[in-house]
Amino acid sequence: MINVALLGFGVVGSGTAEVLDANRAQIEKYVGDAVAVKYILDLREFPNSPYASLIVHDYDIILNDPEVSIIAEMIGGAGVAYKFTKSALEAGKNVVTSNKELVARHGAELHSIAAAHGVRYLFEASVGGGIPIIRPMTNDLAANGIISVDGILNGTTNYILTRMTNEGAPLSDVLKDAQANGYAEADPTADIEGLDAARKIVILAALSFGKILDPDAISVEGITAVTSEDVKTAEALGYKIKLIAHTEQVGGKTLAMVSPRMVRSDNPLYSVEDVFNGILVEGNMLGKAMFYGRGAGKLPTASAVASDIIDIAANLGKASRPMKWEVATADDMADINDYSCVNVFIFEDVRCGVSKLEKVFGKIDRAVKSNGRVAFTAPTMTEREAAEKAANAGVPFVKKFRVI
Amino acid sequence: MINVALLGFGVVGSGTAEVLDANRAQIEKYVGDAVAVKYILDLREFPNSPYASLIVHDYDIILNDPEVSIIAEMIGGAGVAYKFTKSALEAGKNVVTSNKELVARHGAELHSIAAAHGVRYLFEASVGGGIPIIRPMTNDLAANGIISVDGILNGTTNYILTRMTNEGAPLSDVLKDAQANGYAEADPTADIEGLDAARKIVILAALSFGKILDPDAISVEGITAVTSEDVKTAEALGYKIKLIAHTEQVGGKTLAMVSPRMVRSDNPLYSVEDVFNGILVEGNMLGKAMFYGRGAGKLPTASAVASDIIDIAANLGKASRPMKWEVATADDMADINDYSCVNVFIFEDVRCGVSKLEKVFGKIDRAVKSNGRVAFTAPTMTEREAAEKAANAGVPFVKKFRVI
Repeated sequence: MINVALLGFGVVGSGTAEVLDANRAQIEKYVGDAVAVKYILDLREFPNSPYASLIVHDYDIILNDPEVSIIAEMIGGAGVAYKFTKSALEAGKNVVTSNKELVARHGAELHSIAAAHGVRYLFEASVGGGIPIIRPMTNDLAANGIISVDGILNGTTNYILTRMTNEGAPLSDVLKDAQANGYAEADPTADIEGLDAARKIVILAALSFGKILDPDAISVEGITAVTSEDVKTAEALGYKIKLIAHTEQVGGKTLAMVSPRMVRSDNPLYSVEDVFNGILVEGNMLGKAMFYGRGAGKLPTASAVASDIIDIAANLGKASRPMKWEVATADDMADINDYSCVNVFIFEDVRCGVSKLEKVFGKIDRAVKSNGRVAFTAPTMTEREAAEKAANAGVPFVKKFRVI
Repeated sequence: MINVALLGFGVVGSGTAEVLDANRAQIEKYVGDAVAVKYILDLREFPNSPYASLIVHDYDIILNDPEVSIIAEMIGGAGVAYKFTKSALEAGKNVVTSNKELVARHGAELHSIAAAHGVRYLFEASVGGGIPIIRPMTNDLAANGIISVDGILNGTTNYILTRMTNEGAPLSDVLKDAQANGYAEADPTADIEGLDAARKIVILAALSFGKILDPDAISVEGITAVTSEDVKTAEALGYKIKLIAHTEQVGGKTLAMVSPRMVRSDNPLYSVEDVFNGILVEGNMLGKAMFYGRGAGKLPTASAVASDIIDIAANLGKASRPMKWEVATADDMADINDYSCVNVFIFEDVRCGVSKLEKVFGKIDRAVKSNGRVAFTAPTMTEREAAEKAANAGVPFVKKFRVI
């Protein structure tokens, strides 16, 4: 019998108990031993839950029980979750987590504590909900050098942008509706401002390039400035607007960023709609592969937590490959001004505007004019060049979208 | 130093040597030891290859060299590849393969020989080329009961169907062109008759349900009967025709089949175009997840072979979880007549035909008439019911397509 303690009995915590129960026989067959939840730590009581008898309020009970070999942290945040995770690893217990904030902020330290104590710290559920992405990027793509990762990593914003696109509705209306039916939280800031996606791309960047960036220090733009007019412009150009988290190396340094982009119809992310997530990984041998599925939700996320529990349970007592992340210094971070991509530029549609713009951007094919704006796709250039051209065009600049 | 022998120096074999070389430093870091090719077995000489000095023609040299711990079999077929694989496993050497035919036909026996000798037999490259699918289904989805798998598993037929759809061209023209530019083989039988996809779905069915079916005994329909008219009908109904390999359990028995289907636009497989593969896995907790990428090609497939080599190299000397497949008996195989799904029925468009069809099928919404045919989508029914209704409608039946 392998004993597990769950920290937090919210949506993901209760889902994890459910997954371990529902697929008990299959899990026992895979692991070669039964996997059982021994404790559930929560501040609340759950008198009507079938798991009521497992609830404890004192973490020390778990920490001091030598029978508990795996702890699943689903508290969230970087406060008490950090403290609990650290003491669990130091006590020689394996930890799995769905907590992207904690992994993004303290992953390097926690991995190194785990390695020092011969235990594992796994985080499959921290990115992409139920989609297997962390383990495939760690193990399956080990024969590849990662060139870049582009992800639709936040279901709430993808749902909002999909509805804005399909209905032509403004963000505020769709957001209200999404809140009403549970697709967006009462305080949607972390989602719509891109902070959730930022934490996740920082994790994928660390998996790809070994350095973990500070999620507060990378360039993050949410979807609040995306208008119905922008959505229409994208459509006219044959694109769709999606919130894209991106990482690559620029000049040997790591770049990670989040911004709403226009996605071309031949990009597999174009078809990732509603609350779904898609993660497009480019390997130097593999080319592009996409991982697609439910990026959130009780059972999908819990199934990822359970997959980590099972991975540890099936390999208990075997030496494991330590994960080494280094905290990125200022010198490890690429300057976003050096990043280059194709952009859609949008200017005010003034008299003789296009001929002025052509002096700066070269021949403009297929410009889209509507509602006093002119939009066009410009060839690859750096952010620095793009900003210069936008400022010096002699036509009032509205905004630009990166294209993918 | 971990020594590898490559069997077969064709496209995938030479690609594997290239992948191991190109990402040497990264692989050594991951494995914790250098991974080097010591021998390459091929009947031919390759005097101009940088690997010329590694070529051997006598398999015993490899088999008798205790320094070789991993053998990558990329010969193909179930003849000499079977003999070599068996003797390698019996000699206590780990084997990885890209050979779907061998895994489909002898996987159960080879897994059991591997387990008996404490070595591993891995086959990531046998399905989906470079797309990580075998390891994620084995490890990452271990917390899920698999409900079904639907895959576009053959790049050649997907390329042909994509071009038929985009150009309205008949299969024969597109096939000739595909052969001319290397997207189809001179003898395209295994691809266009669905045999390649059949071997692959049999492997995914075994991973999902533990029983390996005989690929020659499952229902397999290729794309040769798909006409330009069918493609137009699909388009008029809002669908696309794709060659879909499917597995699920019906009445506790395992079903696997391959057939051209009409794919709905909200299915993620709808957007899998050209030579790309997509594998949609439904888990009982996860819901649906899709794995997408290049299903063939030198470096993508080689990167999957290399990922297996690296997996073994990184875990040499550790006990591994044996893979247990049972050879399916006739009683383990579901009867395809019990399988049920939505279908598009196509009948001849005769006078009063629709009212006759409505007597048998119920109200027919959105029938599409063209070129003397009437096509409509009917609700879920078993294959048995579908055949009965088609035969008894009193209107000449043309064909039907399963819908996904």
